Amino acid sequence: MDKAPAFQALTVETLPARLGAVEALASRIGADSSRWDVREVGDGNLNLVFIVKGEKGGAVVKQALPYVRLVGESWPLPLKRSFFEYHALVRQEARAGEGTVPAIYHFDEAQALIVMEYLTPHVILRRALIDGRMPPKIARDLGLFMARTLFRGSDLSMKARARKEDLALFAANAELCDITESLVFTDPYYEAAMNRHTAPQLDALVAELRADRDLKVEAQKLKHMFAANAETLVHGDLHSGSIMVTDEDTRVIDPEFAFYGPMAFDVGMLLANFWMAYFSQAGHEGAGHEKAGDREAQRAYLLGVIVETWSVFREEFSHLWRSERTGMLYDRRLYEDRGDRLGSEQALDRILHDIWVDMLGFAGVEIHRRILGLAHNADFETIEDEDLRATCEAKALKFGRHICVNRERIHGLDEINALAVRFEKDLVA
Amino acid sequence: MDKAPAFQALTVETLPARLGAVEALASRIGADSSRWDVREVGDGNLNLVFIVKGEKGGAVVKQALPYVRLVGESWPLPLKRSFFEYHALVRQEARAGEGTVPAIYHFDEAQALIVMEYLTPHVILRRALIDGRMPPKIARDLGLFMARTLFRGSDLSMKARARKEDLALFAANAELCDITESLVFTDPYYEAAMNRHTAPQLDALVAELRADRDLKVEAQKLKHMFAANAETLVHGDLHSGSIMVTDEDTRVIDPEFAFYGPMAFDVGMLLANFWMAYFSQAGHEGAGHEKAGDREAQRAYLLGVIVETWSVFREEFSHLWRSERTGMLYDRRLYEDRGDRLGSEQALDRILHDIWVDMLGFAGVEIHRRILGLAHNADFETIEDEDLRATCEAKALKFGRHICVNRERIHGLDEINALAVRFEKDLVA
Repeated sequence: MDKAPAFQALTVETLPARLGAVEALASRIGADSSRWDVREVGDGNLNLVFIVKGEKGGAVVKQALPYVRLVGESWPLPLKRSFFEYHALVRQEARAGEGTVPAIYHFDEAQALIVMEYLTPHVILRRALIDGRMPPKIARDLGLFMARTLFRGSDLSMKARARKEDLALFAANAELCDITESLVFTDPYYEAAMNRHTAPQLDALVAELRADRDLKVEAQKLKHMFAANAETLVHGDLHSGSIMVTDEDTRVIDPEFAFYGPMAFDVGMLLANFWMAYFSQAGHEGAGHEKAGDREAQRAYLLGVIVETWSVFREEFSHLWRSERTGMLYDRRLYEDRGDRLGSEQALDRILHDIWVDMLGFAGVEIHRRILGLAHNADFETIEDEDLRATCEAKALKFGRHICVNRERIHGLDEINALAVRFEKDLVA
Repeated sequence: MDKAPAFQALTVETLPARLGAVEALASRIGADSSRWDVREVGDGNLNLVFIVKGEKGGAVVKQALPYVRLVGESWPLPLKRSFFEYHALVRQEARAGEGTVPAIYHFDEAQALIVMEYLTPHVILRRALIDGRMPPKIARDLGLFMARTLFRGSDLSMKARARKEDLALFAANAELCDITESLVFTDPYYEAAMNRHTAPQLDALVAELRADRDLKVEAQKLKHMFAANAETLVHGDLHSGSIMVTDEDTRVIDPEFAFYGPMAFDVGMLLANFWMAYFSQAGHEGAGHEKAGDREAQRAYLLGVIVETWSVFREEFSHLWRSERTGMLYDRRLYEDRGDRLGSEQALDRILHDIWVDMLGFAGVEIHRRILGLAHNADFETIEDEDLRATCEAKALKFGRHICVNRERIHGLDEINALAVRFEKDLVA
């Protein structure tokens, strides 16, 4: 068997010659690759991302690098993350439906590259929210996406052996799990070298959080759950920077952190990013595409998106529970087959309750790491006035601490969003 | 490379010729295999077990069959379970210490056979307890064994990548997990074909339990945990039939069900088997090696063993937490390294509390499946008077239901054992 050629990073110059013979690309861009227009648009964190256009259309070529692009060769990262991204995209499309993720045209494992659909005129959801836009479909699309991928990747739906085999496959994505395990759950809670926060404004609050025993025990319990509770294939990095939108379309991208983990992780991370967008609004008054000064409508929109996302998730999860519970858990012979639909509903409520409780924990931790850890959010980072930014961040930090530590004692989003409003308006000490 | 010869089941007649050249065996039994004394002693459930003796000593040869021995070829079961048993024994010895499991002399993967230490004059613990014996060291030895294997196989101790790799290896033990998933957690709670119970005496109670929504939702939640929560390498079948004892020595055998699962599973299954022994005592009055009539001392012994096993487990787990917490969870930089030992103790209490709560659930389910499912316990089965047996079993079933459903609201073994006494003495309806 011929050995695959060794990995080599693409450049704008070499891409047409190297990929010109790939039929999946040539058929979509144009046969003469010397006439392709290639731009590199990677946002700089991990990978190379090229947009390739030609007479027939466009495509995206995403290639992993053997290190973290942002940091350089001193932080190696396996090329195999491209393999996991490819396999996650395949499963997500099968589980959530065509048009929920970018269509895949070609995968080259040795070159760690995926050729996929060029999404246009889509923008990154985080950017849209910072600009004060209100894409109308995101709550529904993301609620459905999460319910379908999380339910259908679990023992509620899959054959037990198939899930165990897939779990073993994704268990090799250890380095990317390690990034989350360290950067999300541990580093923010002590003086880790790569941390940063808005200083000196937040110093006192940060010290308080790092001495907070109740918070740290929750964060580590959630880390334990993240690492050990392999209940479904999660996206693993489902924040507003991993979503591209138009007013009509919503696509979930970049699942290279995918692995078998807890259902509540994706849900919590996503809602956390909406709450952070909410708390960042005061820093964006007067900016963006709407008329200056007023972000009150944007705040209301974001709280509404949170309520609707959870509500759609809950509805769809319940629908799948009732209509396609084909896995080994909560066997219908225990319930429906003996006429006990009420018992089945009781079990469903219990599962949704557990997801709810853990989701709040993951959301709190995600908020903290985006303000205290290595990887910050543009929602806050684009607020140039540091005092104003710190004020927004402080409210989010306190809110995150509250929902994380009190997650077993908070019962609904009305309650939480009312709390978010109180934190935002400084009505809570 | 030569291909390994195809699997062939050993017999008493063929064993000496086939294994005579295995140095690990010849050096322990004697060089002339024609003079070996071979007996087959498998208890008939799954495998072949041979005791081989000769002038120099003895050894055990355990060989898997490609089906469930008890049922026959109609129930196929992979030979690879021998591979998992071997790898589990290696890890258990490394984690719990030499002399806690049988020493391994030789492993032949293709023939699915393990040559191991011949334990003598050991007897199966379940048999000893039925006979009214009180081996004095079991609580201490088993408490230590569980704390050490469960702690050291988890992210509290292992490097994260090493645990994920090992988890992927054992994820292939899907068929044996499936046995537990079906026979322990689901079948007992509906009219599955292979179930049996003492009838008609228990019919009404069995119907009541199968209609019990609170119980069934707990059992399925525990099944979900069993299947998805891959926190450590568990033995997977740690009942009193998987333990061999003398007054001085305790060995844990038969880990072919091993996989990465919840810590609480082994603990719960073991204590459940002690509680079942307790509830079976009324059926053994007047039998066994002690003077006839009185099993009160045996009852007290069993409740004492339960208290001590948990207490030793808790103490040793706490000791390991303080002295060798080298994994990625509850990083010392969050606690001890910043002088916060109290925070570390708070986290430890939280983990032990979670193990406690889940252990009670697994114990309740284990009691049920041994009375309602396919695989029954000799503790009850050897009670010939069916009315008497049913009386013992009914108490155990009710007790199991109580600790399973109320597991979050029960706070200590004093409370539970007092409850066991009340159930046993018929002081509870």
